[in-house]
Amino acid sequence: MAKQEDLFKNVVSHAKEYGFIFPSSEIYDGLSAVYDYAQNGVELKKNIRDYWWKSMVQMHENIVGLDAAILMHPTTWKASGHVDAFNDPLIDNKDSKKRYRADVLIEDYAEKLNIKAQKEIEKARVRFGDAFNEQEFISTNPRVVEYLSKKNEILARMAKSLDAGDLDDVKLLIEELEIACPDSGSKNWTEVRQFNLMFGTKLGASADSAMDLYLRPETAQGIFVNFLNVQKTGRMKIPFGIAQTGKAFRNEIVARQFIFRMREFEQMEMQFFVKPGEEMKWYEYWKTTRLNWHKSLGLGAENYRFHDHEKLAHYANAAADIEFNFPFGFKELEGIHSRTDFDLKAHEQFSGKKLQYFDTEENKNYVPYVVETSVGLDRMFLAVFSKALQEETLEDGSTRTVLRLPSVLAPTKAAILPLVKKDGLPEIAKEIMEDLKWDFNVAYDEKDAVGRRYRRQDALGTPFCITVDHQTIEDKTVTIRHRDSMQQERVAIADLKNIIENEVSVRNWLMKM
Amino acid sequence: MAKQEDLFKNVVSHAKEYGFIFPSSEIYDGLSAVYDYAQNGVELKKNIRDYWWKSMVQMHENIVGLDAAILMHPTTWKASGHVDAFNDPLIDNKDSKKRYRADVLIEDYAEKLNIKAQKEIEKARVRFGDAFNEQEFISTNPRVVEYLSKKNEILARMAKSLDAGDLDDVKLLIEELEIACPDSGSKNWTEVRQFNLMFGTKLGASADSAMDLYLRPETAQGIFVNFLNVQKTGRMKIPFGIAQTGKAFRNEIVARQFIFRMREFEQMEMQFFVKPGEEMKWYEYWKTTRLNWHKSLGLGAENYRFHDHEKLAHYANAAADIEFNFPFGFKELEGIHSRTDFDLKAHEQFSGKKLQYFDTEENKNYVPYVVETSVGLDRMFLAVFSKALQEETLEDGSTRTVLRLPSVLAPTKAAILPLVKKDGLPEIAKEIMEDLKWDFNVAYDEKDAVGRRYRRQDALGTPFCITVDHQTIEDKTVTIRHRDSMQQERVAIADLKNIIENEVSVRNWLMKM
Repeated sequence: MAKQEDLFKNVVSHAKEYGFIFPSSEIYDGLSAVYDYAQNGVELKKNIRDYWWKSMVQMHENIVGLDAAILMHPTTWKASGHVDAFNDPLIDNKDSKKRYRADVLIEDYAEKLNIKAQKEIEKARVRFGDAFNEQEFISTNPRVVEYLSKKNEILARMAKSLDAGDLDDVKLLIEELEIACPDSGSKNWTEVRQFNLMFGTKLGASADSAMDLYLRPETAQGIFVNFLNVQKTGRMKIPFGIAQTGKAFRNEIVARQFIFRMREFEQMEMQFFVKPGEEMKWYEYWKTTRLNWHKSLGLGAENYRFHDHEKLAHYANAAADIEFNFPFGFKELEGIHSRTDFDLKAHEQFSGKKLQYFDTEENKNYVPYVVETSVGLDRMFLAVFSKALQEETLEDGSTRTVLRLPSVLAPTKAAILPLVKKDGLPEIAKEIMEDLKWDFNVAYDEKDAVGRRYRRQDALGTPFCITVDHQTIEDKTVTIRHRDSMQQERVAIADLKNIIENEVSVRNWLMKM
Repeated sequence: MAKQEDLFKNVVSHAKEYGFIFPSSEIYDGLSAVYDYAQNGVELKKNIRDYWWKSMVQMHENIVGLDAAILMHPTTWKASGHVDAFNDPLIDNKDSKKRYRADVLIEDYAEKLNIKAQKEIEKARVRFGDAFNEQEFISTNPRVVEYLSKKNEILARMAKSLDAGDLDDVKLLIEELEIACPDSGSKNWTEVRQFNLMFGTKLGASADSAMDLYLRPETAQGIFVNFLNVQKTGRMKIPFGIAQTGKAFRNEIVARQFIFRMREFEQMEMQFFVKPGEEMKWYEYWKTTRLNWHKSLGLGAENYRFHDHEKLAHYANAAADIEFNFPFGFKELEGIHSRTDFDLKAHEQFSGKKLQYFDTEENKNYVPYVVETSVGLDRMFLAVFSKALQEETLEDGSTRTVLRLPSVLAPTKAAILPLVKKDGLPEIAKEIMEDLKWDFNVAYDEKDAVGRRYRRQDALGTPFCITVDHQTIEDKTVTIRHRDSMQQERVAIADLKNIIENEVSVRNWLMKM
């Protein structure tokens, strides 16, 4: 666990130091749970977005794109259920004036019981050595049994009360457990109440005439309200998909884990419209397809797993997450949801407009069912970045930091380095750069010893370093160094473009799927 | 004028009918001055953004990108002057309860005087024929002189009052001119007051503990607050630029002209940091460079002109617009501003942090000067789309609608069409599509006569139609039809990729600059 925490700290500091991610408005001491993508981060993020877009839209004849606005008519969010049900239960401490999520306070309490139980287990493991039978110990040791059953009881009661909307019982539970304010130690709590997670704003000029708007909490609804317009003007036939990337906003009370859960974040979503009754077939299809897409990036198949939801959202009849092994454990990276016809029917009801598809084969109208694939772009960034960041011990005992980004996603594809800053080598290096920049993001670096420059490019994730030396003057060859293997080969300048293209092109990466 | 209005109506309806732009949340009767980019619009918009990004960031060694969040620390907007001075003067009619921009009411009144003068001029032109001397008539005809001098007097007084913050005099002017509510005819007006154009929202859980935030009204400040972080982590040397594309929001009271002035819009901005005293050199450089960039798209050099600002914003020491000939006349497409050190100094003052650059050549610290280039992405879309949309009369007397988009920006690069839906032609056409889709956005269409399919692709702006016919089976050739010339040539299937690539690649288009 300690090692994971260290790794995570490394991720955050490397992201800052090498120009991938800065805290938002840092000169004003930041804005909580909001981050800016810096000069290298913006390229990595753009490359992830483009890779997704090409694989979803360009590669699929029956999937088209959309870019709906962040601001939508507010009735959209009545229909989707967000106005009434997109809430967190909050509680205030009257003495410290601090505000908490009531469910998080209770979960933290339950987690402490769990930790106590784990400690007992570890102590016993040390004491009994090879003879230790963990399962038996857990089910018979009185203290462990008490801790764990108490933990389960608390979580079950909380879940039941929240489901039933019984906030008084949530408050009662906090009082019975004598949970104190982590800040002040006070147990003087307000009532628990629901807080809507949508950011509100007002369209128009004054309070009396203004229209209450929300910053969209998800991009999906922009697709649903445009479903029929796209289907008709694009002459789409079911099954077909609409894909979209864009910002969404959630006023999280407790936002943490760097860019994993931000108040402003970006989604990459595709809603796939199918004939009712065929949704499970497509749900399975997209689960497999999306998992393969992730695996194609080469971060290691063992870092992905499915988590099938047992408890389903009100709109879904099947749902699974693709979880990724983040520095803080396996967490959701992408959701695949069979959303039924819930959203389209709700929009029919609230708008009074028919949102039906005429199926020429069946010769009838119906409201399609929807299978959704939804990735967090920022989470995807964190997944790629954190897994790529590695400390290596080299043969000579020295260490290097290398960012083993999939080369298709790397911000800079090649750095061109003159071995020395004289003898005309910089001029040749610049010529190579001027030639390659038409096709790739490339960098030029002449500062410091070449070994240090290699390390700098390793830390930035640049797949190739191209070094111009004295032999270059004679035979128009350079060395090309591969980031991951650190192998160098001598190649003709004229071949550089093809070598790089072959390694970094989206086309070639998509072909690996 | 009538023809221009018709053209503009055509633009709006073509954009809807062919899946480029839909009104936002249309099933809920839309959200005023907010639009969604549909399946073809999203690709065109993306291609414009990418073309800009590549030409600014990839092609310039000393320009890097950034993607700052929409939500920023609120002090940012104190420092930039937006909290205090980003206002419109509003007035309400007490009877109709309608709200107006006071300056627009007065401008509309002045425009009516102008129209009256123009009518007199036109009448005289008809009466006098070739003998008509317009300049003399304007300066001597009593009615025309009265209309125009009255118009100028009104606009001058309004400008002076607004500058001085004398809103009482703006109200007085409306009363003196007896301007009535366009809706009700009532002259019963409230006072004029300033209304801030930023959308506000609240971060956090309740009114008492919440932090007042704004949706950024411009992307520039995200660059300024990150200036030193980017400079240091990117080891940038002056002169250097930071480029960014992203959404901004303005709560416009009167938003009109389709996507020209929206409440939610996207900017493509680059802030170029220079040594104080060198800003005019770079200002001229970027004016020229940006104009050439626009012209490289081939929409006609005559459709662009500079408009140098006589009156400068508080932060600028020089400013010019690149204006484009929109369907409603020449209007701002891009702004090039020499912003001095105003913004960085303001952020130094409000944050208490130094935002200085250490110049190793001069061996001293200074706050850089900034030259900004700022394009509206939506305006750019409108410029390209409206100029590309043409009705043509063909040799046989029939007409066609063709969207002559620069091929680098076209949503779909090629449509593959089997001549007939039998004899194995669809299979070959699909094979070609499957092969080309790795590299390009392509479409397959087998419905209707091939002539109709050509027209459909013309209206979508697709540069190439590839038709598979019976000869294809024999010799593996197809016809390729060029959208603009309608010329067809017979080419080998194996050559298609190169033919298309050569015509549509960003690389080749950038080389035209």
